[in-house]
Order: sequence, then C-alpha cells, then structure tokens
Amino acid sequence: MHYKKLEARFAKINDLNHALSMLSWDDAAVMPTGGGVARTEALATLNGLIHTELSAPEIPDLIHAAVDEPLDAWQRANVLEMKRSYEDAMAVPADLVMAYSKATSLCEQRWRQLRAANDFKGILPLLGEVVNLTKRRAECLSEAKGLGQYDALLDTFEPGLRQVDIDPLFTSLLDFLPGCIDSILSQQEPAIPIEGPFVEDCQANLGRLMMAQLGFDFEHGRLDVSHHPFCGGVPDDTRITTRYNENNFLESLFGVLHETGHALYEQGLPASWRTQPVGGSGGMALHESQSLFIEMQVCRSPAFIAFAAPHIRNAFGGGNESAEWSDDNLLRHVRKVGRGFIRVDADEATYPMHVILRYDLEKALVAGDLDPTEIPDAWDEKMRSYLGLGTVGNDADGCMQDVHWFSGTIGYFPTYTLGALAAAQLFKSAMQAIDDLPSLISRGEFEGLVGWLRQNVHSQGRMLATGPLIEKVTGESLSAEPFKAHLVARYLD
Amino acid sequence: MHYKKLEARFAKINDLNHALSMLSWDDAAVMPTGGGVARTEALATLNGLIHTELSAPEIPDLIHAAVDEPLDAWQRANVLEMKRSYEDAMAVPADLVMAYSKATSLCEQRWRQLRAANDFKGILPLLGEVVNLTKRRAECLSEAKGLGQYDALLDTFEPGLRQVDIDPLFTSLLDFLPGCIDSILSQQEPAIPIEGPFVEDCQANLGRLMMAQLGFDFEHGRLDVSHHPFCGGVPDDTRITTRYNENNFLESLFGVLHETGHALYEQGLPASWRTQPVGGSGGMALHESQSLFIEMQVCRSPAFIAFAAPHIRNAFGGGNESAEWSDDNLLRHVRKVGRGFIRVDADEATYPMHVILRYDLEKALVAGDLDPTEIPDAWDEKMRSYLGLGTVGNDADGCMQDVHWFSGTIGYFPTYTLGALAAAQLFKSAMQAIDDLPSLISRGEFEGLVGWLRQNVHSQGRMLATGPLIEKVTGESLSAEPFKAHLVARYLD
Repeated sequence: MHYKKLEARFAKINDLNHALSMLSWDDAAVMPTGGGVARTEALATLNGLIHTELSAPEIPDLIHAAVDEPLDAWQRANVLEMKRSYEDAMAVPADLVMAYSKATSLCEQRWRQLRAANDFKGILPLLGEVVNLTKRRAECLSEAKGLGQYDALLDTFEPGLRQVDIDPLFTSLLDFLPGCIDSILSQQEPAIPIEGPFVEDCQANLGRLMMAQLGFDFEHGRLDVSHHPFCGGVPDDTRITTRYNENNFLESLFGVLHETGHALYEQGLPASWRTQPVGGSGGMALHESQSLFIEMQVCRSPAFIAFAAPHIRNAFGGGNESAEWSDDNLLRHVRKVGRGFIRVDADEATYPMHVILRYDLEKALVAGDLDPTEIPDAWDEKMRSYLGLGTVGNDADGCMQDVHWFSGTIGYFPTYTLGALAAAQLFKSAMQAIDDLPSLISRGEFEGLVGWLRQNVHSQGRMLATGPLIEKVTGESLSAEPFKAHLVARYLD
Repeated sequence: MHYKKLEARFAKINDLNHALSMLSWDDAAVMPTGGGVARTEALATLNGLIHTELSAPEIPDLIHAAVDEPLDAWQRANVLEMKRSYEDAMAVPADLVMAYSKATSLCEQRWRQLRAANDFKGILPLLGEVVNLTKRRAECLSEAKGLGQYDALLDTFEPGLRQVDIDPLFTSLLDFLPGCIDSILSQQEPAIPIEGPFVEDCQANLGRLMMAQLGFDFEHGRLDVSHHPFCGGVPDDTRITTRYNENNFLESLFGVLHETGHALYEQGLPASWRTQPVGGSGGMALHESQSLFIEMQVCRSPAFIAFAAPHIRNAFGGGNESAEWSDDNLLRHVRKVGRGFIRVDADEATYPMHVILRYDLEKALVAGDLDPTEIPDAWDEKMRSYLGLGTVGNDADGCMQDVHWFSGTIGYFPTYTLGALAAAQLFKSAMQAIDDLPSLISRGEFEGLVGWLRQNVHSQGRMLATGPLIEKVTGESLSAEPFKAHLVARYLD
C-alpha cells in the first residue's frame, strides 16, 4: 500500500525533527557557549537531511498512487499535509537550506551575547546574512507557490495566511486601540508596588504548581530557563522555558502560564497521529491563540486571581491582610496597561502595536525597502508613531529585544496578534459552552475548560487550517470584534 | 580529491553522532519518563542513518582511490579509521542495527525504574532481547572480522583488544589481589565517620570548583545529575554527570573527579581533527586510564588531599581543628579498602574483582553458556568466590546495579581494569617526567600534569591504538606490575 510507505517515510522525518527540536531546546536552555560551532554544523546537517527526505523523488509518485487507495478522512488530510511539505521542500534548494540553517543558528547564538552587550553593530553582519538568505528563500517560495514574497514566508508559519487577511484586521485595531488605550490609562487605578526580591526557587515552584493545576503533564515535559522564553520539544516531551526577574515575579509567572497554554496544545495533539504531519500542531496563529487563551483570557481574570492569590502569597510569604498582597492589588498588577518599549512585557491592549511595528518593518526588509543598517532608526520612528514613545537609546531594549529576526523567524510576528484575536473569539465560545466557567476557574477546576480546548482544538491536529477551524468552533470567521469587546469589558466597563 | 570527499562524508557522520550523543545525554540527564518511547524511535532512526552513511557503497572506492593520493600521517591514519568503521558497519545488517538501538534504549529506560523497584523479573524480557540481539551482532562481527564472538565485541570498544591479552593480566591480578587485600585490611587504620547531611548544592559547588582547578573548561562543558554517572556529549561540549548522596559527599566528589579525567581527555582531543574519525578518543581502556589517572593516581594521593582539604572543609563548614575533618582523616576516607557489593563504590584494590566477575559472566552470556534468567544466582556465586561475600539479597545492588548490560554494553567491563593498569603505568612515567609532581599537586597546580597528558595522550587522537600508545609513552607494553607496585606503595609500605 503506497499510503503506508508514505507514513513510514514521514515517521522517519518526524524522528529527525525530534532530534532537531531537542537540540534546539538544548542550544537555548543548557548548551555552554563554546558548544555553539559544533552545534551549528550538526543542526545544518540535520536540516539538510530532513530537506533531502522531504524532497525525495519517490514522494510525488507515492502521493499520486496513495490518493487512489481507500483512505479515511485523517489519512486523506495526512496526504495533503505531506504534499504541502513536499512542495515547500522542493521550492528551496538544498544548499540554501544548509546555508540558512548555519546562518540563523550562528546569528541566534551571537545575539545572546551581543544583545547583553547592546551591540547592534556587532550583530549586523550576521543579521545581514540572515536577511539576505531569507530574501532568497522568499524568492524561491514565492515562485513555487505563486505568492508574493512576504506572503510566501507567512505561509510557512501559518498555512493559508495572506497579507490581505491581516491588513483589515490590523487596520481595525489601529483605528480602535489608541483611543482605547487612552481611555484605560485615564481611568485605571494604580497598583501598590510589591517589594522583592523574589527568590528564583520560589518563583519556579509557584510556576510548576500552576502548570500542574492547569493540566501540564510533567511525565511528558519540563520547565527550564532560557534567554528568550519558548515552548519546544515534542508532544510526548514538551519543554517550556522562562526567565526569572528577582524584582518581579509576575513577569515569570505569566510567562510560564503563557507557555503552558502552548504546551497544553502540544500535549493534547491526537495521540495516534503523533508521528505524522496531520497530527502536528496547526499554524502559529492557532498556537498563539492557545497560549493567550490561557494567559490573557483565563489567567488575568478576577476568577483566576481568586484561585491563584493564596498560592502566590504562600510562595513568597505575603501577608493575607497586607494591601499589596490583596487579591485586588494582584489583579491591578496583572492588568496594568501602559505604553512601554518591551513587547514581551506589554499588556494585551498595547501588544498589537508592538506587533504591527514589526510587521511593517519586516515587510520592508523582505521587499528590500529597508536595509538592516536602518533598523534602529526605523524602530524609533515606529515607536513614536504607534506608541508615542521617544528613543529608547538602547538597542538591547529596542530592535535587539526579540530573538526572531536574528534566528531567521521573519514573517511570524503577525501571528501573535491574530492569536490574540482568536483567543478572545474562542474564549467567548467557551463561556457560552461551559456553565458558570468563572466559578470553576476561581476554584482551580480547569478540567472542563482544558477538555473543551482538547476536544475542539488540540485533538484536531491539522485536519483543518486555522481559519476554517476557528469558524467551525466559534461559528464565525476570525475577526477583531471579540477582542475589542473583551478589552472594553475588562478595562472600560 | 577523493580524500576530501571522504572527509566531507565523515564530517556529516560526525554531525549525526553529535545529535546521537546529545540525545543520549538528554535521555539520561533531563528527559521526563514519558518522553522515552518517542526518544527510542528517534535514536533508532539516527543509528540507522549513521549505519547507512558508514556503509555507503561509494566508501570503499573512495578509500581505494584516496590511499594513492599524497596524504600526511594524520590523513593516512584517518583513512585507516574510516576503513575500520566502514568494515564494522558492513558487518551488521541495517535492520539489526535499528532493532538493537530500540531494544537497548527501551531496556535502559525501563532499568532506571525497575532497578529502583528491585525488579529483575520485570526487566528480564527486555534484557533477554538485548542479549539475543547482542549475540546476533557478535555473530555478524565475528564472521566479518575473523574473530571469536566475544573478541569481536571487545574490538568494538577497544580496537585490537583480545581475550588472550586480557587473560594473563587478569590471572596475575587474581594471584596477587586477594592476599594484598587481606594485608591492607589487617593494617589499615579506621577513619572517623564524618556526619552529614551534606547539602546537594554545596556538593555541586565543590565538584565544580575541583573540575575548574583541574582544567575542565566550562565554556565547553557541563556538570549535571543522572542515575548512572557518565561522560558524554562531544569534545566541544563535554557533559559529565554525577549523583548526590546526602550522607556521603565523597562518593559524588570522587565520581566527579573520575568523570573529569574522561572529560579532560575529550576536551584535549586535537582541535583540528574534531570532525574526523582520527580525531576521536581511543579505545575505552585508554579512556578509563585517563579517568583513573585523575581519580586514583592523582586525587587519592596525600598531595591532592593537602590541596583539597581546605576547600572541602570550607564547602561543608568542617572545623579546621576537628579530628574528623583533618587531612589525615580525609585521606583515610578516600583510601578505605573493603569488600563490598557495589562496583562504583569499590576501592581500587577490590575493584578488579568486580570487573573480573562481570567479564566471566558476560563471556558466558555471549557464548550461550549462561541464560539471562540465571544471572542473579551466578552473580551471587561469583561474589562469594571473588570477594568472599554472601548473597546481597537484592538485585538492585546485585546484578542490576550497573546500566551496562541493560544498555547493550557487553564486552566493555574489562576495559575498566585495563584502564586502571594503564593509569598506574602512565602515572609512573609522569612522576619521572615532571619534577616534584607531588608538590605541584599539593599546591593545586595541575597545568604541568594535565599538559603532559595533553601532549602524550589527548592530542594524539587515534593516531595509535592503545597498546602501541602506552608503549610509546611509558617505554613498556601494558602490564599489571606498575599497578601492583602502586597498591603496595600506597597501602602496604
């Protein structure tokens, strides 16, 4: 049976991706600096092998023969996913795959040091190489897919997503958010500062407690530390990371809750399709909807704080009676809105502005309208126009704050905000589907809610693209309205 | 140039081995239990790919053509190593390589749990499969190499090593050691117990301090925790592990010193040959000589204790004046000789008896004279005859104490004792070559000593096999005499 032969080939590719994924986690979480050169070579070889396997000349014939065989719906969707990865692989020549792997891996490793040294000039040659190779990849993908170059990159992160889908959503946000932010700022009550230091071990223990409560399975995953928090590994062994700030435990705690949302998605993928493309997670917008569903919709709600506050006080010895450790004050902290320089510290109202800034700049980079040398100035200008902020005067907290461009992740940023919109829309449906959800959350009972996500999203693998899946679950196509309504209800009502 | 084509192929194989090595470290040091099944598949696929690359049909032609090209001595030795790995790979069919990889990886993972549960019956089906597949491998290797089956396995761990080399050395030890041990036991002074508990973090900090002092490069390596201590990773990123006993800090400390010896070897391999077979470490007997050189010859000496004792007292708040924390008492602890059940806790005088026991049993397993079901009884019997000990009554501390057989490492144990003999012989030469070595050691000045190892052993890669290398460095072929003389000088003079 030709279909079975395809399954065996893709199981092997899955094993190589397992290696790639674990080595990338290792690189970010535990590898000593001096291991970087050898690691870069190993990752490039693995990427090259995966490319060879994905573009094997037998695959189109096998696919052609398999579609005539009696296949069920999952198998049929699996073949479509195989076809997509074959076509994506064929679009880019092997030497470009290897060169891109080496350039991005080296640049990401150096970024860790040079960001700390605030040295944009130092990283510029490596970033220039990454941007050049990304443009070459974009050209190849564009030609093969018949898409514009930026669309061709977007499509690798969120299949089917196009600029024409994004632009009206972002325009709607740009119309709405500045006024909304002003209103929030004019009426929000200030939070009483909570004084640290907060011991790292206590933060880690609290994070693990919350992860377990939400349903993270520690038999199949870990929490570690890295420069830039992420969710990696494989569904059977999901590795999330965070970083600890001794003066602010909420940064790490909500980072952990965010990554837990990603991890629940990975751990909830259909068990019998683990080795096959159709069993993988959907596009990155859908992935982000899962992290923001947990972090923003669930965990920054009064109900969640009612559940979490005693644990938080217990972790840091915060007094029950003291004003700064009260539920109300904690809630004010996790809902603080403000215009700031750092995307990952941004609240949900200002966050889309950070994303749109990056979207504008990365489109210009790919189009060749912005040279990498011009990024710092362009960054400042956008910061002014979108967030009304002056020069940060510090590239580490400016254009070097995110790992994405340095690791070749260009065409990805918009998925963060699409994820935020999808999270709001999904949560609205969950509220309708689950009786008295806030009460359940306030008692720390998440099984029903996570079960709803498992059934409607996680267990679906890649049976549907993100757009159709959102439409199936919520009854409406993806829009900015539920997100805007959520902001109004949470901050302005 | 054909030679350059071979180098490119073997650099790629080196990258795959990098992945294998790091995934194995991950498996042992950080992987959650539930990740085991997916990991087993990934390791098997990588092993299969490495086998495919090593046995590629182009290799013999390339080798044939390369030897007529103008090559320097390193290149020539490199081609010989390539030829050896090609022949080893060709000897074993691909399906057996994959089956062996899966069986050993599964069995090792289950051993971690079943050893803790003292459940030999539980592990028996998996161990039986490992032994069967090892016998099939031994048959294939035996036929291809024209060696006996056990010799064929030995040869994969220490190229060129044969039972006929081992037997006279072991016979000499069996003649000498029982009487020697009796003499030591009759005259050794008892050590004053040092009461714990010893906090794990303090143990880890002390271990790292000693590693750094000996020259371990933390830019290119790490110390972590695992069930069974080992040295893994790659030369540019050498990962050693230990395990901590809250009641005995010396177990972990000397375990760390032992693995540091292995790691110094890896980190000292010739930098310009990192990606090629000739640049790898030699056989496992030579590797063990490097760990035992550091642990036994250097670190259990009065000179080393004079250097280390203040650091040890400082780590655990041991009083300068108290009898149990005195240099003399610490030295008595690190030189305590006694007949015990556990190999890794054994002193250097009784250790060879543990090895010879395992050598006897694994030869019988490979020959089919011992069935895996019979191992516990055979173990007890050997314990009685070699060490005069009764039944341990507990397989966890009996035949399940070591990971080796459960991970398919059969034909490896003799290299531990050959390493001990080589370490004594090498140290004798170092004492002659370096002026006033004990003084240097007592001041914590290890550069000269490690430099001597670097120059004579580490930087040699695989230019020579272990036997010829020992002969070149020490002027004599490997013998048991320096080891015996060392025991007499240390314990009986």
